[in-house]
Amino acid sequence: MDKVNLKQKFSMFTDYWSPKIVGELNDSHVKLVKLKGEFVWHQHETEDELFLVVKGNLLIKLRDQDIFLEEGEFVIIPRGVEHLPIAKDEVHVLLLEPKATLNTGNINNERTIIDLESI
Amino acid sequence: MDKVNLKQKFSMFTDYWSPKIVGELNDSHVKLVKLKGEFVWHQHETEDELFLVVKGNLLIKLRDQDIFLEEGEFVIIPRGVEHLPIAKDEVHVLLLEPKATLNTGNINNERTIIDLESI
Repeated sequence: MDKVNLKQKFSMFTDYWSPKIVGELNDSHVKLVKLKGEFVWHQHETEDELFLVVKGNLLIKLRDQDIFLEEGEFVIIPRGVEHLPIAKDEVHVLLLEPKATLNTGNINNERTIIDLESI
Repeated sequence: MDKVNLKQKFSMFTDYWSPKIVGELNDSHVKLVKLKGEFVWHQHETEDELFLVVKGNLLIKLRDQDIFLEEGEFVIIPRGVEHLPIAKDEVHVLLLEPKATLNTGNINNERTIIDLESI
């Protein structure tokens, strides 16, 4: 059984908006992702999603609210709630969500990633 | 929708081995717990459990392996695997596990906590 060192795992990739699987428990995946810039508005119809900021700052826009996360802060976006992550500068995020979760949720476009890499 | 600041939440309690619920997603709870000393050997029959060290160091003994976690490291203990957390000094840990999870797993003793507090 191996432990996971977040800093070491983040050092293994440089691409943005491409979550890497670093753990699996129950029906969920733990993923790490680096974000920079603006994503697309989307929602996950049947999955709640946790964003924990490990390094940097992340703005998550909802239709009626802005959530600004700093290092050591997390938010859970409930299923069905449209959200738009925006990272002014690079931010390192730990995601927790059901294995079936697609990064772009209900939107299928060039930013959709079907097969996530495990690192 | 409220974000959670880990440091602020940890400042809200001082008791050891008493996980507090700070988030709920899908079928799981996110919990924070302060540990100091030695717990009891136990296992969770049907639940995988994630330990992420937020501050300090944590030793998790398995029957055939020792896992030593430092700040920024996590491990997932699969269901059915006996484990014994030991904290030489105070350690702050984020737990992620199904809502049904009992802190002492298959063991029912004076350290078992039935109704967890949400903070």
